[in-house]
Amino acid sequence: MKYYKKELWFNISERVAFINITNQVEEALQESGIKEGLCLINAMHITASVFINDDERGLHEDYKKWLEELAPHEPISQYLHNRSGEDNGDAHLKRQVMGREVVVAVTDGKLDFGPWEQIFYGEFDGRRRKRVLVKIIGE
Amino acid sequence: MKYYKKELWFNISERVAFINITNQVEEALQESGIKEGLCLINAMHITASVFINDDERGLHEDYKKWLEELAPHEPISQYLHNRSGEDNGDAHLKRQVMGREVVVAVTDGKLDFGPWEQIFYGEFDGRRRKRVLVKIIGE
Amino acid sequence: MKYYKKELWFNISERVAFINITNQVEEALQESGIKEGLCLINAMHITASVFINDDERGLHEDYKKWLEELAPHEPISQYLHNRSGEDNGDAHLKRQVMGREVVVAVTDGKLDFGPWEQIFYGEFDGRRRKRVLVKIIGE
Repeated sequence: MKYYKKELWFNISERVAFINITNQVEEALQESGIKEGLCLINAMHITASVFINDDERGLHEDYKKWLEELAPHEPISQYLHNRSGEDNGDAHLKRQVMGREVVVAVTDGKLDFGPWEQIFYGEFDGRRRKRVLVKIIGE
Repeated sequence: MKYYKKELWFNISERVAFINITNQVEEALQESGIKEGLCLINAMHITASVFINDDERGLHEDYKKWLEELAPHEPISQYLHNRSGEDNGDAHLKRQVMGREVVVAVTDGKLDFGPWEQIFYGEFDGRRRKRVLVKIIGE
Repeated sequence: MKYYKKELWFNISERVAFINITNQVEEALQESGIKEGLCLINAMHITASVFINDDERGLHEDYKKWLEELAPHEPISQYLHNRSGEDNGDAHLKRQVMGREVVVAVTDGKLDFGPWEQIFYGEFDGRRRKRVLVKIIGE
């Protein structure tokens, strides 16, 4: 069995943003030399997500608006979590809707994707350095 | 290490539906000959889900009603995504709630399930051919 | 390839609760002797979740309040599922928001975590014996 690990670093200037990381994950897969297996991609921070969906700007705005309705950022005082001095209570909720991680099949040395699948880093509490983990196992 | 891949095809006549695919995944597992490992089952389309829950008709109706409340299909104009000529903006949101994929343990040649776990394909934008990927690794 | 399986049992006295199981998963990893690979941790019941987030009491209360707003327990009659004699229709919905499972990278014999990641069992229909599955594969 082969295995490979890589960390991707981000420092997003907005509080909420979606970044297409498909190319970076494909690059990690090439570096690994793994042809068949599974590739885990997960946010290492609990106010961020990794998810797979469409790279379409309108959709991303729809996600932001919808998540803000499901878990509004303000008033900050509505979240007990924010009594600890944070203002990111909403980010912990939004991340659960969008998910922590994806697992992608590796077949013939490639991410085994359907026609529109793209991998995104979802930031809900930006303006700080944060990481995504890529771990690939297989042969 | 052994690995096995199979695609399951669907063409659902409704816009929204849940299809029990447990038997098809078990069949793929038997074909693989893998006795111990992990089995990934993921939607290959971004307006569909794979999830695990109960095979109970009332519950599935509850899911449909609840998802329609969380992300209504109409009015179509409420989603920026639909300005690109689509009418499936809501489907991209519903799929995030229900999830893209599940990973199931394989133990003694079987899906290692609790008493009520069943695997479903969740369709949120049907009436077209779409796929689910089954990828199994192990030994 | 090595593999290891362990079941963790719970009998939560409340209907809804979040239990930190990070230490129990780390213990299973030590028992496995696996140094590099993937670790799947999933609820074996369909009214429970396994998720990763912060071990902060205020946040957990925020989750409970938020999930109750998204999928209220009462009135019980609002869920078709409950016509089968159950009162846990809401629990099947809450579990989808929080997720069934997490997959964690194993690196150098440890769960490869960011600074605040902790694993939780999320119970939404307690007062009965329920299980979590830990399955680790690697070498």
